[in-house]
Amino acid sequence: MSVTEEFTLDFARSERIGLEEAIFCAGKSPEQIDAILEAARGRGASLLLTRLDPEKRDRLKALSAEVDAGSAQERASQQRSAAARLDYCPVSRTAVFGDAPRVTGPARVAVVAAGTSDVPVAREALRVLAYAGRAASLFADVGVAGLWRLTTRIEEIRAHPVVIVAAGMDAALPSVVGGLVAGAVIAVPTSVGYGVAAGGRAALDAVLASCAPGITVVNIDNGYGAACAALRLLHAAGRLAAETER
Amino acid sequence: MSVTEEFTLDFARSERIGLEEAIFCAGKSPEQIDAILEAARGRGASLLLTRLDPEKRDRLKALSAEVDAGSAQERASQQRSAAARLDYCPVSRTAVFGDAPRVTGPARVAVVAAGTSDVPVAREALRVLAYAGRAASLFADVGVAGLWRLTTRIEEIRAHPVVIVAAGMDAALPSVVGGLVAGAVIAVPTSVGYGVAAGGRAALDAVLASCAPGITVVNIDNGYGAACAALRLLHAAGRLAAETER
Amino acid sequence: MSVTEEFTLDFARSERIGLEEAIFCAGKSPEQIDAILEAARGRGASLLLTRLDPEKRDRLKALSAEVDAGSAQERASQQRSAAARLDYCPVSRTAVFGDAPRVTGPARVAVVAAGTSDVPVAREALRVLAYAGRAASLFADVGVAGLWRLTTRIEEIRAHPVVIVAAGMDAALPSVVGGLVAGAVIAVPTSVGYGVAAGGRAALDAVLASCAPGITVVNIDNGYGAACAALRLLHAAGRLAAETER
Amino acid sequence: MSVTEEFTLDFARSERIGLEEAIFCAGKSPEQIDAILEAARGRGASLLLTRLDPEKRDRLKALSAEVDAGSAQERASQQRSAAARLDYCPVSRTAVFGDAPRVTGPARVAVVAAGTSDVPVAREALRVLAYAGRAASLFADVGVAGLWRLTTRIEEIRAHPVVIVAAGMDAALPSVVGGLVAGAVIAVPTSVGYGVAAGGRAALDAVLASCAPGITVVNIDNGYGAACAALRLLHAAGRLAAETER
Amino acid sequence: MSVTEEFTLDFARSERIGLEEAIFCAGKSPEQIDAILEAARGRGASLLLTRLDPEKRDRLKALSAEVDAGSAQERASQQRSAAARLDYCPVSRTAVFGDAPRVTGPARVAVVAAGTSDVPVAREALRVLAYAGRAASLFADVGVAGLWRLTTRIEEIRAHPVVIVAAGMDAALPSVVGGLVAGAVIAVPTSVGYGVAAGGRAALDAVLASCAPGITVVNIDNGYGAACAALRLLHAAGRLAAETER
Amino acid sequence: MSVTEEFTLDFARSERIGLEEAIFCAGKSPEQIDAILEAARGRGASLLLTRLDPEKRDRLKALSAEVDAGSAQERASQQRSAAARLDYCPVSRTAVFGDAPRVTGPARVAVVAAGTSDVPVAREALRVLAYAGRAASLFADVGVAGLWRLTTRIEEIRAHPVVIVAAGMDAALPSVVGGLVAGAVIAVPTSVGYGVAAGGRAALDAVLASCAPGITVVNIDNGYGAACAALRLLHAAGRLAAETER
Amino acid sequence: MSVTEEFTLDFARSERIGLEEAIFCAGKSPEQIDAILEAARGRGASLLLTRLDPEKRDRLKALSAEVDAGSAQERASQQRSAAARLDYCPVSRTAVFGDAPRVTGPARVAVVAAGTSDVPVAREALRVLAYAGRAASLFADVGVAGLWRLTTRIEEIRAHPVVIVAAGMDAALPSVVGGLVAGAVIAVPTSVGYGVAAGGRAALDAVLASCAPGITVVNIDNGYGAACAALRLLHAAGRLAAETER
Amino acid sequence: MSVTEEFTLDFARSERIGLEEAIFCAGKSPEQIDAILEAARGRGASLLLTRLDPEKRDRLKALSAEVDAGSAQERASQQRSAAARLDYCPVSRTAVFGDAPRVTGPARVAVVAAGTSDVPVAREALRVLAYAGRAASLFADVGVAGLWRLTTRIEEIRAHPVVIVAAGMDAALPSVVGGLVAGAVIAVPTSVGYGVAAGGRAALDAVLASCAPGITVVNIDNGYGAACAALRLLHAAGRLAAETER
Repeated sequence: MSVTEEFTLDFARSERIGLEEAIFCAGKSPEQIDAILEAARGRGASLLLTRLDPEKRDRLKALSAEVDAGSAQERASQQRSAAARLDYCPVSRTAVFGDAPRVTGPARVAVVAAGTSDVPVAREALRVLAYAGRAASLFADVGVAGLWRLTTRIEEIRAHPVVIVAAGMDAALPSVVGGLVAGAVIAVPTSVGYGVAAGGRAALDAVLASCAPGITVVNIDNGYGAACAALRLLHAAGRLAAETER
Repeated sequence: MSVTEEFTLDFARSERIGLEEAIFCAGKSPEQIDAILEAARGRGASLLLTRLDPEKRDRLKALSAEVDAGSAQERASQQRSAAARLDYCPVSRTAVFGDAPRVTGPARVAVVAAGTSDVPVAREALRVLAYAGRAASLFADVGVAGLWRLTTRIEEIRAHPVVIVAAGMDAALPSVVGGLVAGAVIAVPTSVGYGVAAGGRAALDAVLASCAPGITVVNIDNGYGAACAALRLLHAAGRLAAETER
Repeated sequence: MSVTEEFTLDFARSERIGLEEAIFCAGKSPEQIDAILEAARGRGASLLLTRLDPEKRDRLKALSAEVDAGSAQERASQQRSAAARLDYCPVSRTAVFGDAPRVTGPARVAVVAAGTSDVPVAREALRVLAYAGRAASLFADVGVAGLWRLTTRIEEIRAHPVVIVAAGMDAALPSVVGGLVAGAVIAVPTSVGYGVAAGGRAALDAVLASCAPGITVVNIDNGYGAACAALRLLHAAGRLAAETER
Repeated sequence: MSVTEEFTLDFARSERIGLEEAIFCAGKSPEQIDAILEAARGRGASLLLTRLDPEKRDRLKALSAEVDAGSAQERASQQRSAAARLDYCPVSRTAVFGDAPRVTGPARVAVVAAGTSDVPVAREALRVLAYAGRAASLFADVGVAGLWRLTTRIEEIRAHPVVIVAAGMDAALPSVVGGLVAGAVIAVPTSVGYGVAAGGRAALDAVLASCAPGITVVNIDNGYGAACAALRLLHAAGRLAAETER
Repeated sequence: MSVTEEFTLDFARSERIGLEEAIFCAGKSPEQIDAILEAARGRGASLLLTRLDPEKRDRLKALSAEVDAGSAQERASQQRSAAARLDYCPVSRTAVFGDAPRVTGPARVAVVAAGTSDVPVAREALRVLAYAGRAASLFADVGVAGLWRLTTRIEEIRAHPVVIVAAGMDAALPSVVGGLVAGAVIAVPTSVGYGVAAGGRAALDAVLASCAPGITVVNIDNGYGAACAALRLLHAAGRLAAETER
Repeated sequence: MSVTEEFTLDFARSERIGLEEAIFCAGKSPEQIDAILEAARGRGASLLLTRLDPEKRDRLKALSAEVDAGSAQERASQQRSAAARLDYCPVSRTAVFGDAPRVTGPARVAVVAAGTSDVPVAREALRVLAYAGRAASLFADVGVAGLWRLTTRIEEIRAHPVVIVAAGMDAALPSVVGGLVAGAVIAVPTSVGYGVAAGGRAALDAVLASCAPGITVVNIDNGYGAACAALRLLHAAGRLAAETER
Repeated sequence: MSVTEEFTLDFARSERIGLEEAIFCAGKSPEQIDAILEAARGRGASLLLTRLDPEKRDRLKALSAEVDAGSAQERASQQRSAAARLDYCPVSRTAVFGDAPRVTGPARVAVVAAGTSDVPVAREALRVLAYAGRAASLFADVGVAGLWRLTTRIEEIRAHPVVIVAAGMDAALPSVVGGLVAGAVIAVPTSVGYGVAAGGRAALDAVLASCAPGITVVNIDNGYGAACAALRLLHAAGRLAAETER
Repeated sequence: MSVTEEFTLDFARSERIGLEEAIFCAGKSPEQIDAILEAARGRGASLLLTRLDPEKRDRLKALSAEVDAGSAQERASQQRSAAARLDYCPVSRTAVFGDAPRVTGPARVAVVAAGTSDVPVAREALRVLAYAGRAASLFADVGVAGLWRLTTRIEEIRAHPVVIVAAGMDAALPSVVGGLVAGAVIAVPTSVGYGVAAGGRAALDAVLASCAPGITVVNIDNGYGAACAALRLLHAAGRLAAETER
């Protein structure tokens, strides 16, 4: 059985639900990812890759059919050029294969990171939004242990109708933000912390149990999912605006 | 210490975040709830009450100051009239005290219940939306074990930019819906089920781990929270529409 | 074997660790509690009882040896007088048997309840402090969903060197308080809430994982333990003050 | 004590329950596995090995008695030939020692993998079925996020009386398949995913709580067990067919 | 909104997957169940009801449209006749509404209960099999603490190609049975036990982790699901037998 | 199917493993228990019953065949006499049916209860030991919060070669005892406590993780099991003594 | 986006709550830590770093702006001098950057480690106290399995008004200490142990459920938090002493 | 602070409780272990070390005071001789430092390993027993999936008054053994397995919930503890025999 039988790309996803398929690399072998990229290349499609560790990125074969031919030097050069076609971000472990759309328009989404350690998750969200052509703003290290860090920036945050909040440990920030802004709040619990906080379950449960009403939640460390939720929301808002106009 | 020192109503909440304060009755004594209703009556405010069990509803004292005076017959009559002022729904255990706004406009929110047992949670969401003046549609018993029940109604569901999906047991429905609609999807896991499903943790984890991108989640059985999230979203959409117009 | 062999009162506890023994009634039969009260009466000692449900309180026999003698009317009267000797608080389910010391001095402990539903736990703490002769202040319903409720009272709270914070659900309040006051902060997670919050584990984990440094924690719903911790602290402070003076 | 006292091969298992013993290598040392293979060689038996990591495979000694004799070159050659006698599949981490039966007859078992990351578990099942001489078909990457991927292949799947479904994350696929096919459905939850999905408990609970009736479940990542369950089932079917004929 | 909008009966289920829809009553109100029975009566369909507590059964309204008319005596009589149409078993909490098929043919399924306390779950399985017209045999109280109880009956059990084993506490019985019979083994962990066994998770994990290969598992206390799994299996066997004949 | 098919008494257990069969009543219906007692009566055997709630005890039918005949008064009298044949202890919820052996010899087992609330579990152990004819001593309320309560009695405890320690909450007592006595220590964690201690898992884990070497553990609240373990141990000791003598 | 936007140092924390900000290094990249140190250096501030693994420490860039210039030898020398400015303790994985205050006054805090394996956590607490200028005493390996080790040192421990107790496994020590000293007791459960003790949850639950009253708890392995709690307490005591004086 | 302050050896343990202190090496640094060995050498004591990984063993410094002096060659030679004084077993990760007593007398303890993967835990128990001078017998790979492996050896096992059973996965073996032998049964759940069996909690819960009466349990993988429990038991038996003789 060939590795190409092991995946079925969902190129119609964007038309169906407004979101491009993304390749979750954590459970896939380099061979599988290579075959997927090859299939995308064959269709001239671009792809977003998530959870691509640097080690796995380095093990991806070059993407052109000719890469096995030629000298070692040529192969190395081809590999470099293939790697270059992957716009890779090691902090968020995301990669864009092929051309991404230009980011345009004002930032409608605020991505807030409670602590410096939550930045990788926040960046994953920012990268996914950018891949969809959406501008967004980052607000980092504004956790509630020093409330002034939040209150001095809350007006700026409030200016965005959608707010993503990445927070680990006790994840108290989404509750406080949810009590201060009227827009949509999407909480991303993170696995930052140790002891009872290790793995992020404490943060997850805290945001699910939030005393601030109407906060929604995605899986632990799921910056990708938070961004997709924001995109769905902007999509819904667009439809509503269009209907109102008529 | 008087019971009136035990609460601080947040009447400014609506101005701040666009959501009225609601009274979560599960952990409160009838005395506390009575005092809260009295305080609202004093301001001429209406209130939404959630998780009000029939037994506790029946133990609420009449709300007028005069109720302790007069004959037993008069008191009973006063209690009835006070009860009448509570628009109570035993299925969703919600009550509206005072006047609720009229529901207007087209239904922007679809509330989907996977099974008949998930209807109480769905109804809580519908009641909260109605209290906020928002129309919504119910789609019940469309779980994936009989996929035709969903597929025959998916076009109707898709017509709503926001979809709330209440599902217990394996909670597979939100994933399937999320793969079929482009709008915002808010999943409410329910505690319906037994064995590993008891309490709703299995349903919660399933929707958090959903393979469909961009699904957001609220706490188990939290129809109230799902409705609030939908209201935040409609608020955000309204702002975006206003900005686009300009 | 007699029921009097089933307990060994620790009357020396106060001398040893500065805290009187309290009787935890949840796991004890009315017969056992009656025998314990009788033993205390025999020594002329007073006792604090915690987790005494109203039903169990009503099942306690009268405390004098003569109660079984006499007419039904006499017995009823004796029972009432015995009951009167139990200063019972149904909200906190605590009772004081015998004489409690007078509360004196300024309030050194602030007891903060995040929501109205957290008041029973807060009251347990207040009752224990009062039994030890310590004044304390209650601040109720100041949860972070409406941050102004906290900020308008934070100066008052800050005036107390020891702050007990009872909070359920996401228990975000102790973190925010911990970032605003310099004194000792003792968090009591409560079992208020449903879904992931049911039982209080989410609140417990949140306060243990708090991003605010130096917050200490006691068991879920353990208002008694929080008060004892405050008493230990005041004891330690007294020793330090005495040493400094010298 | 010798290593040969540490195992007792169950060569009669096949006669007793129709399934050959397999060697679970995860908890065994290379020395133990070597001794087991040697014992099997001594009886001329073949063996199936599961959960044999590539590193451990490489540490197995050569299997012939003569391997310690001779030059380094000879030993290396002997090791290669021994390794060759292990038909090893690194994706499923399974190995067949000795001769496996020829696979014959039509495919009675469909092995369905929800995502590309679930393929290793699916392959383990396929390898075990092949070792028992049973043909089977693989259907990969047909998860419910893109329902068309499943619906376009459901007729093919339905043609198999037994369906194994390997799925991680929310494991919604077995429920949907269970609502569409009349045959036996064996779900294998996988540990694919992160956050609440990590380790596979969310997937396991989802399939146990499935709203589709009559789905059976095996341990997380247990492709071996799913295949054995299918073999038991085919065995039972064979008996029933034989009885019916008579 | 009417209660009839709250369910969508799946009368085509039997044609699609060979299993009739059953009504899970645990999460449904008597009003909902009444409406479902009325709908079935309207189509002349029979229905299986599971998890119907005696209290809820007693609260079901009579099923004929005329029941509200007439004298109290008439209504009581009608209720009795309606109740009579529900073939109710309080041990297994199952009911059959309308006509069930006759049970025919030899018993192909052995239902084994480890202890006397596991009998209610075993009976639920037996009732579901009977509703589908399938004969089955019960073997009760054959747990491994007295191994002779099992070994004296193992030949009888082995004569059935499908074996359902209900076991709580440590659930060691399915492993032992699985090592002794070649047929399909479906384990139903039960919630029998206390301490670590309470709720059935220990039994569930034990059967999932069974050292005997090819045992399949259903949810805790899910006698219904085990029977459905057996029915799927007999269906698959029937197809295989038919194909072999040709 | 008759209720008598639902159990298989293991009258040979005592010969096989030295322990009489006991009837665990928690999961059994009064009908089942009645049938079991009838079967024992038929053989002239005595029986030990555990976890028999007072309510269930009251629902047991009289045990003689004639009980249904005669007047109401006669039946009541018969029931009383039957009840009298059950030596019932409501604290430990145990009952002895028929004749129990006389307790003889010196006490070899010390049963230690950390707190007064742990006494019911301790008493269950004492009752089981007495049913087997073994003397034992109770030491109650010697928990470590007041270490003097333990140290003043440790010499007495040490005089018993086997020590059972029942403790809930933090279950620190078995560790301290284990560091002070050389005999066998069997810890029984109890479900006494609330918050993290509720259900007894905290106590269980504490004793399993004990820093004192060689402490053994039984299930939560399992006084019966602890006594059986002590009996096994005394049996083993008897054998060793016999072998030594020869 | 620059790495300097990823943090917001809270230099006012000390004035606000009496505790300096500390840098939790576990979730931060070396780049982030370098930038934070650079920012502190720019303000002439000192900083405490926690959870700094030796590997990460070694990857920190030199801290002077000139370090990239010059020869390899110069750079190495600069790195050494920079490293020298980090007072690093590999056992507790803490580092002090810049000047720490001199430790003065008598030891008010006893830091007790139940076992030798708990010493790293105890040392973290000692280092944090020293950074705050507070003297403290260590008592190591005084666990309850050998009670004499505690009792011979209890008077010394009692001389400190604040006692921090680090204990893993069953964490019985804090309960015993809490029963013997009158001062404040702060328990730090540690992750020392295996099986049920692994990760420290058993120790955590034991101390939360302690039978000794008024023990407070911090997160697993959180020596830093225990020290901060002690500092808050000493701060509160200072205020009380000052008020008393007046 | 010196590393020698970090431990307090309990050389009186043997006199107090009949068990020598053992050094649990998992949480200790090589420096700490070296210091402990040095202290034992100073007293001429021997020591048992558990959970000593091969890597850590290799990092132990030589034990003589002179080891730092002399040439590299001398130091290496000294290290070898020191290592030689550690009788190390890599399978069980135990080491004996100094002289161990001679094993004498007949084997009173049977150590049974359910599968080959459970042998390391069984060997730890055997090593601890040998260190205490007690003979014991190993029975390996007799798990219940092939019941004949157990039944052919049960008479041999039964000849030992104390039986330790190490079993992972579903841990069904202790229940079956407990139903067949009259002696003391000590179950050691092991962490062998994957999915729900990973970590050993499933095996632990199964043995705690065992349907066979009187089985005692120690922590997961705790072969050391099982052996100590056996030693306590043999100690108790010795006392009983001595008393009987008199």
